[in-house]
Amino acid sequence: MNPNPGTMPPLHPILFEEAVRRALLEDLGRRGDITTDAIVAAGATATARMVVKTGGRIAGIGVAGGVFHVLDPGLRFEALCGDGADVPAGATIAVVRGSARSILSGERTALNFLAHMSGIATATREIVGIVAPYKARVVCTRKTTPGLRTLEKYAVRAGGGFNHRFGLDDAVLIKDNHIVVAGGVAEAINRVRQTTGHMVKVEVEVDSLEQLETALTGDIDAVLLDNMTVEMLCEAVRLVDGRVRTEASGGITPQSAGAVAASGVDLLSMGWLTHSVPALDVSLDIEHGT
Amino acid sequence: MNPNPGTMPPLHPILFEEAVRRALLEDLGRRGDITTDAIVAAGATATARMVVKTGGRIAGIGVAGGVFHVLDPGLRFEALCGDGADVPAGATIAVVRGSARSILSGERTALNFLAHMSGIATATREIVGIVAPYKARVVCTRKTTPGLRTLEKYAVRAGGGFNHRFGLDDAVLIKDNHIVVAGGVAEAINRVRQTTGHMVKVEVEVDSLEQLETALTGDIDAVLLDNMTVEMLCEAVRLVDGRVRTEASGGITPQSAGAVAASGVDLLSMGWLTHSVPALDVSLDIEHGT
Amino acid sequence: MNPNPGTMPPLHPILFEEAVRRALLEDLGRRGDITTDAIVAAGATATARMVVKTGGRIAGIGVAGGVFHVLDPGLRFEALCGDGADVPAGATIAVVRGSARSILSGERTALNFLAHMSGIATATREIVGIVAPYKARVVCTRKTTPGLRTLEKYAVRAGGGFNHRFGLDDAVLIKDNHIVVAGGVAEAINRVRQTTGHMVKVEVEVDSLEQLETALTGDIDAVLLDNMTVEMLCEAVRLVDGRVRTEASGGITPQSAGAVAASGVDLLSMGWLTHSVPALDVSLDIEHGT
Amino acid sequence: MNPNPGTMPPLHPILFEEAVRRALLEDLGRRGDITTDAIVAAGATATARMVVKTGGRIAGIGVAGGVFHVLDPGLRFEALCGDGADVPAGATIAVVRGSARSILSGERTALNFLAHMSGIATATREIVGIVAPYKARVVCTRKTTPGLRTLEKYAVRAGGGFNHRFGLDDAVLIKDNHIVVAGGVAEAINRVRQTTGHMVKVEVEVDSLEQLETALTGDIDAVLLDNMTVEMLCEAVRLVDGRVRTEASGGITPQSAGAVAASGVDLLSMGWLTHSVPALDVSLDIEHGT
Amino acid sequence: MNPNPGTMPPLHPILFEEAVRRALLEDLGRRGDITTDAIVAAGATATARMVVKTGGRIAGIGVAGGVFHVLDPGLRFEALCGDGADVPAGATIAVVRGSARSILSGERTALNFLAHMSGIATATREIVGIVAPYKARVVCTRKTTPGLRTLEKYAVRAGGGFNHRFGLDDAVLIKDNHIVVAGGVAEAINRVRQTTGHMVKVEVEVDSLEQLETALTGDIDAVLLDNMTVEMLCEAVRLVDGRVRTEASGGITPQSAGAVAASGVDLLSMGWLTHSVPALDVSLDIEHGT
Amino acid sequence: MNPNPGTMPPLHPILFEEAVRRALLEDLGRRGDITTDAIVAAGATATARMVVKTGGRIAGIGVAGGVFHVLDPGLRFEALCGDGADVPAGATIAVVRGSARSILSGERTALNFLAHMSGIATATREIVGIVAPYKARVVCTRKTTPGLRTLEKYAVRAGGGFNHRFGLDDAVLIKDNHIVVAGGVAEAINRVRQTTGHMVKVEVEVDSLEQLETALTGDIDAVLLDNMTVEMLCEAVRLVDGRVRTEASGGITPQSAGAVAASGVDLLSMGWLTHSVPALDVSLDIEHGT
Repeated sequence: MNPNPGTMPPLHPILFEEAVRRALLEDLGRRGDITTDAIVAAGATATARMVVKTGGRIAGIGVAGGVFHVLDPGLRFEALCGDGADVPAGATIAVVRGSARSILSGERTALNFLAHMSGIATATREIVGIVAPYKARVVCTRKTTPGLRTLEKYAVRAGGGFNHRFGLDDAVLIKDNHIVVAGGVAEAINRVRQTTGHMVKVEVEVDSLEQLETALTGDIDAVLLDNMTVEMLCEAVRLVDGRVRTEASGGITPQSAGAVAASGVDLLSMGWLTHSVPALDVSLDIEHGT
Repeated sequence: MNPNPGTMPPLHPILFEEAVRRALLEDLGRRGDITTDAIVAAGATATARMVVKTGGRIAGIGVAGGVFHVLDPGLRFEALCGDGADVPAGATIAVVRGSARSILSGERTALNFLAHMSGIATATREIVGIVAPYKARVVCTRKTTPGLRTLEKYAVRAGGGFNHRFGLDDAVLIKDNHIVVAGGVAEAINRVRQTTGHMVKVEVEVDSLEQLETALTGDIDAVLLDNMTVEMLCEAVRLVDGRVRTEASGGITPQSAGAVAASGVDLLSMGWLTHSVPALDVSLDIEHGT
Repeated sequence: MNPNPGTMPPLHPILFEEAVRRALLEDLGRRGDITTDAIVAAGATATARMVVKTGGRIAGIGVAGGVFHVLDPGLRFEALCGDGADVPAGATIAVVRGSARSILSGERTALNFLAHMSGIATATREIVGIVAPYKARVVCTRKTTPGLRTLEKYAVRAGGGFNHRFGLDDAVLIKDNHIVVAGGVAEAINRVRQTTGHMVKVEVEVDSLEQLETALTGDIDAVLLDNMTVEMLCEAVRLVDGRVRTEASGGITPQSAGAVAASGVDLLSMGWLTHSVPALDVSLDIEHGT
Repeated sequence: MNPNPGTMPPLHPILFEEAVRRALLEDLGRRGDITTDAIVAAGATATARMVVKTGGRIAGIGVAGGVFHVLDPGLRFEALCGDGADVPAGATIAVVRGSARSILSGERTALNFLAHMSGIATATREIVGIVAPYKARVVCTRKTTPGLRTLEKYAVRAGGGFNHRFGLDDAVLIKDNHIVVAGGVAEAINRVRQTTGHMVKVEVEVDSLEQLETALTGDIDAVLLDNMTVEMLCEAVRLVDGRVRTEASGGITPQSAGAVAASGVDLLSMGWLTHSVPALDVSLDIEHGT
Repeated sequence: MNPNPGTMPPLHPILFEEAVRRALLEDLGRRGDITTDAIVAAGATATARMVVKTGGRIAGIGVAGGVFHVLDPGLRFEALCGDGADVPAGATIAVVRGSARSILSGERTALNFLAHMSGIATATREIVGIVAPYKARVVCTRKTTPGLRTLEKYAVRAGGGFNHRFGLDDAVLIKDNHIVVAGGVAEAINRVRQTTGHMVKVEVEVDSLEQLETALTGDIDAVLLDNMTVEMLCEAVRLVDGRVRTEASGGITPQSAGAVAASGVDLLSMGWLTHSVPALDVSLDIEHGT
Repeated sequence: MNPNPGTMPPLHPILFEEAVRRALLEDLGRRGDITTDAIVAAGATATARMVVKTGGRIAGIGVAGGVFHVLDPGLRFEALCGDGADVPAGATIAVVRGSARSILSGERTALNFLAHMSGIATATREIVGIVAPYKARVVCTRKTTPGLRTLEKYAVRAGGGFNHRFGLDDAVLIKDNHIVVAGGVAEAINRVRQTTGHMVKVEVEVDSLEQLETALTGDIDAVLLDNMTVEMLCEAVRLVDGRVRTEASGGITPQSAGAVAASGVDLLSMGWLTHSVPALDVSLDIEHGT
C-alpha cells in the first residue's frame, strides 16, 4: 500500500514530454483549434479548474500540468493535490491560469491523460483495499496500452500497487512456450543462468504442482502460478515455503482478488488494471475570463 | 452499421508504423527479450496462432501483422479474417510463421494492439445493435487514449460506428465555454463563419431548448444536445425538424443508449467507447517448432 | 477578406517548432556557423532590424521570432507588426537584440521562412483585391511545398484568402478518377455517404454541365467546376442556383481571376498561390554591436 | 552545363526518405484518404502516367518514385527519363502500376515534389542557356525553402547549375556584417585562417573596388561581388586577374543574367532559382483500372 | 565465459536501426558522397572484403551488415563469422557485393561501428582470459559512450563478459551519496524495499568492512566493494561467505585484474572496457568492379 | 595550436541537445532512477562538484551543463573553466546546485560526455605538444564514434587540433579505390572538377612518389600521403614544394608523430584521436544537501 498518498516522487518530465507533445499534435492537427481561434481573442485570459466528477485516486496531475506547459509555457498550472491522493467527487484538483485560447486548446489532451491514469490508480486502490487483510502485493503486467507503459505503471504505483517487469529486457520470465522449446524447466533455467547478468531476477511460470516442484530445484527468484484454483494456490504456497516469491496470475478480477490473496501468495498480478479499467470522470471548468 | 463485416478498407501502414515501432521498442528496451534469447536457438522456427478467448468484433488484425513485420520482415503473417469480422470464442484469427525468437518477442506488443482495438470494436458493435431499431448512428469522441486516436477511431468504424471530429482542426464544435466568451450563440456562429473555410462543418453544443432555438437561427450543420433527458431530446428533435443533424451526448451508456436513440436523434456520441471499454481477450499459442 | 489586417490569431508555436528546428539544423549542419564563430566574439551583442525591401503583406513574423528563440532563448525578438499587416518598402517589421553570434547564425533561416510566407500572403492579397468587387472567396489547394502546408495555408489566410482541405482526411473531394472507378457520380456520392461521418463535407469535381446536373441530384455540399470557360461557369452558377457552393478551379492566374469571379462563383481555388509565387524581399540589418 | 542530361547520379533515398514520409503524413493526416477509401475497392489495381503539361527540365523523378514506394512497397514505379532530362509538353515521364487506392492517395505528394523540383531545374536551365556564351557558372544560394535544401540544390544541378555552400558549416563566407565586427577585411580573414581547417574554402563579400583590393591581399579563394553594376564587375574582374574566383551576386534575374555574365565573372549566384520560380505543371492520369 | 564463440544470439535490427541511420546521415550530410558521385558510374558494381588488420574478437558484424542494408537494400552482405568469433590478423570477416557507389559511401560508417565494437569485445576477451583461473565474471558498467549503450553492452557479451545494469531503471545500486542522504545503509535499504518491485535486484556499494557488515544485515542481493585493496577484498569475501554476490570495482586494469580476481570475488566490474579501449583495426578492400 | 585555452567559441546547444536527450533517456529508461527515487526526498537539494582526478585538457563542459539543463531546467550549473582549458588533477571544473534527485539522476550521463570529450582533447593536446617544434597542424579524421562526430571534432579543436572533413559531403577526398575505378589520378580529378562547386576543396590520396607527381599535374588543393616512411614524406614535401597542402596519414601514434612532423608536412591526420584514446577520469561529488 502506498503509505504516503499524494507524496510519491513525481516522474521527471523528460520521461513523458514526447508522449505529451505527440498527444497535443494529434489533437491540434495541421491548423490547430479552429473553433477557439475563431471565437476567442488572442489576448483573452481565463482561470480554469480541473474537477473530478466522481471520487477516486489521482494519478497524472504532473502530466496534465506538462500538457499545458508544453502547449504554452506562459500558462500557470497549480496542482492542489499530488499523485496518489484520494479525492471526493466534486473536488478541484488543479487550477490553470493564463491565455484562454491555450487553456481551451489544451483541455482535452490534459484530461485524456489524467482521466486514463486516474482510472488505473483508482482501480488499483480498490484491489489494494480488497487484499489489505493479507500480505499480498498487487502488481501490474506488460498488458499495457501501446506507448503508455511508463505512465500506466506509474499510475499503478499511485494506486498503491507495484510493478512487475517493464519490458522483455529487465527481468527473466520463463513461460510455458519457453519451457517447451527448452525441453523442460531445469534446462530452461540452466540456459538463462549461463547468459544472464547478476542484477537480473528470474521467475518461472508453472501451471501444475509437479512443474512447481521441478522449478524449485533451479536457481530462481520467483514462481508465477498461472490460472490455478485457490486450493492449488494454497498448496503451492505451502510447497514453496518461503524459498521464492509466489505470484498468482490469470484472469484475476475484483471479485476473485480477495480469495486469491487469502491463499497466502506474495503477489497478485492483474492485466485488468491496465487494459480494461474505466477512466475517471474529470472535467475542466472555465471560471471567468477577461 | 457496417454493411460488410470483415471487408472494410484497411489503414495504410504508414499511418500506424511509428506507433508500432515505438510500442516494440517500449517492450524490447535496451537489450531485447533476454528470456527468449537465452533459451531459444537463433535458427528455431515455429508456427503460432492468434486465438480469441471470448467472442467479439475484430479490429487491428493489420496492425498486429504490422508488429511482426516491423520486428522481423522474415515472418509470414496470415490473417484469417478482416477487421470488422465477428468471431466466436476459440476462433483462430491469424497465423504467424517463422523465427521462434521473433514470434515470442513480438507476441505481447501484437496482442496489446489487437486486444485494445477489438475491445473497442466489440463494445461499439454492442451499442450499434442496441440502437439498430432506430435511425441513430453511433459516434465516438475526442476522449481517446493519447497517441492512439487514429487506431481507436478506426476500431469504432470496425464496430459499425462512425467518427466525430478527429481533432480540433477538422471541424468546428462551439461549446458552452466558447459561447460564454463570445457573448452568445449568434455571435459565436458569426465569428466562426467569417474565418472558416467552405469545407468545414459547424456544430453547436446546447443544453436547453432556448439555446437550441437561438442556435437554429444561425448557419450551422449540427447541434449537440448535451446532457438532456429523453423528454428534452424528443422535444429538441421536434424543434429541429430535420433542418440540421441532432446529436445526443453526455454520459450515454449501454443501459441508456436505447432510450436515447428512441428519441429520434440522428447521432449518439459516446466517449465511453474509447476511454472505458475492456480489452478483448486474445492470446497467441505456439503450435509447433523446429 | 481579412477584416483586421495584422491581428489574426497567431499559430501556437508547437505547430511549427519542429519545422523551425529542422530548418536551423539544415543550415547549421554538423559544426555550426564557422564564419561567425571565427570572427565574432562569444560575448558580443548586437541589435538587428528585419526590413522589407519591397512592400507587401506580412506572414510568418511569429515563425521568424520562433527561429531566433529556438536557436538562442536569450535573444529578444520584438515584432513591430502582426501577420496580415500591409507594410511599405523599407519598413522595419521586427527588431532582434542579443548575442551577435546567435543573430548572425539564425538570420538566413528566419528570413527564408518570412520571405516565403510573406510572398504567399502578398500574392493572395493581390488576388483578393482583384476579386473584391465580387462575392467570391479566394482559396488555396493541396499543391503546397512538402513539409510546409500548415505555414503556407496560414500565409494564405494572412493574405485574406481561405483554406480548402488541409489534406486527404478532413473533407471529401470526389474527382474524375473516383467517378470513373465508381461508375458514375451518383454511385460515388452514395458510397461516400455510407461511410463518412456527419462532420465531413463533400464536394464533387465536374467538368461539364451534364455532370453538374447529375451531381446536384446527390447529397453534396459543393461542386468544383474544373477548367470551365467563363461562359460555362456562368451557366453552372445559374444551374446550381445557390443549392451548393460553387468553386472555380484550373489554371486561374492573376490575369484571369477577375473574369472568373465575375461569373458569380462562390470560390476561386488557385494552386498558384502556394507553388509558384515569388518570395518577398526581406533582409536583416545589423544596426550596432558592442 | 550538365554534359549528360538525364544521367546525373541520383541521390541515395536515405537523403530524402524522411522528407517524403513527412510529406505523405502531412497529406494523409490521421485517417488517410477518406474519399478514395470510400469509393475505390481495396483490391482494385490501376496504371497511371505522370505527364508534363508544359515542357521543361526534369528533377525529382526518383523522389516521386520514393513517395509511392514509401506509401506502398507493392507499387511498381517506372521512370521513363532521368533527372536532368529535357522533355516536351505532353511527355509521359513515369508510369506507376499497382493498387488503385495507393496510387490515388500518393498522387498529390509525388506531384508536389516533382513539380517543385522540376520548376527549379527548368529555371536553372534557362539561365544556364542565357549565360552559355560566357564562361560563368550558375550557382544557387542558401535562400532555399526550409526543409528542402538537399532537394532544391540537387534540382539546380539537374538544371545544369552548380551549388554554393550547403550551409553555414561547409565553407566560409565573410559578409559585410562580419567585416564590421572584425574591424576590417584583413582582420576578418586573419581570424578565419587561424581556426579553419585546410579543407575549407574562404570567400569574402565586397561591395566596392577598394574593399576588393584589400580582400585580395588576404589568403582567400573567392570574392563575392555584391550588387555591383556591370561596369564595376568588369573592373573587378580585371583587378582580380584570375587570382581568385569571382562571383556576381545581388538581385540577378533572367533579364540581367546575360549582361552580368558578359562581365567575365566566374560565377553568377541567384537566390531567385530556389525561392521564386514557378512549379512545372505535371499531372497524373489514371489510364485504366481493374 | 562465452561457451560458443561466434554463435551468440544476434540483436534484433530494430534495436540499432535508428543508430545506424543517424550514423549514415551524419556522414552523408546534406548532399551525400560527392567524391564517389563524381567518379563512380551509377551502374558500376563491385565486391568488397572487410578485413581485420590485427587479430581480435569480432562484435558488430550484424550492425555492419545493417549499415549497408539501410543505405542500399540492393547490396548483398555475407558475414563470414558471427559475433563472438576470434579471428587472426588478415582474416576476411565479411563480403559485400553490389553497387560500387553504395559500398564506397557506406564503408566508413560500417567500419566505425565494427571497429569500435570489436575493440571492446577484444579487450573484454583479454580480461576474461586473465581471470579464467578464478570464478569471477567480468562485467561492464554504465560508463558507456552516449547513444551506444545497447551496442557496447552487446560487445562486452561478445567478448565473454556479462552486463551490469543497463540504466538507472532496471536494478537498484545504492551508492555512497545515497547512503549519506538516507542517513545510513540500513535506512537506505529499507526505503528501497518499500517501493521496489519483486523483480528488481538490489546492490549496495561499500568502501569499508564496517559498512559491509551493516549492509549484510539488510535484504540485498549483492555488494559492490569499491576501491578496496586485494587484502580487503579477501577479507570481504570471507565476511560475505556466499550470502550475496560480491563485486570488485574501482580502476581495475588489465594489470590488476588477475590479482583482484584471485581474491575470490564473484564479479569484476570495469568501466575501462567501454570508455577507454582502442578500436580494432578493420578495413574494407574493393576487390574488383565492373 | 589553440591560442586561447579556455575561450574557444562554444557550440550552440541546438547542435547537441538531441544527443543529450537521447543519452539521458538511454540511462533513465522507462521508469527513471529507481534508486534515487526510493531514497532521496523530492524536495531535497544539494551542491555537487565535478572534479578531474587526473590532469588534462577539458572539452564538453557546456555539454555537461546541457545534460543537467535538459533533465531539470531548475538546476544551476556553473562552469569554472571553459572548453580548451588545462586543469590539474583534483581541480573542480564545475558546480551544480539544486534538486538532489536531479543531480544524482543526471550525474552519469554528464560525466560520460565530459570524460569522453576531455579524453580526446587531452590526447590531442599531447600530440600538438609533440609536433610544436614543427609547422604541422594535427587533424582528426572521419573515424569517429557513430553519432558523436560533432562533439568529437569539437573536442579535437579544444585540444588544439584542426578538423579534416566532417563527412562525405563537405570536401572531396579521392582515395585509392576511386582512382582505380576512374582509371587514373588525372581522370579522377577531371571528373571531380566537372561537377564540384567552387567552394569545395579537393584532396588526393597517394601512396607513391610517382602517383604524387601525377596528382600534382591536376587542379587540387592538397595531397594525402598515405602510409609513407619518414624518408618518403621528406621527398614528397620537397616534390610538392608548397604548391598544395601536404598531409601525412596512416597509423600515426604519439610515438611516431614527432618524426613524421619533422618531415615538413603541413598536416598530420590521426584516426587514433577519436577512436582509441582513453577517457579522462572525472567524477561528481555531492558536497552537502538539505
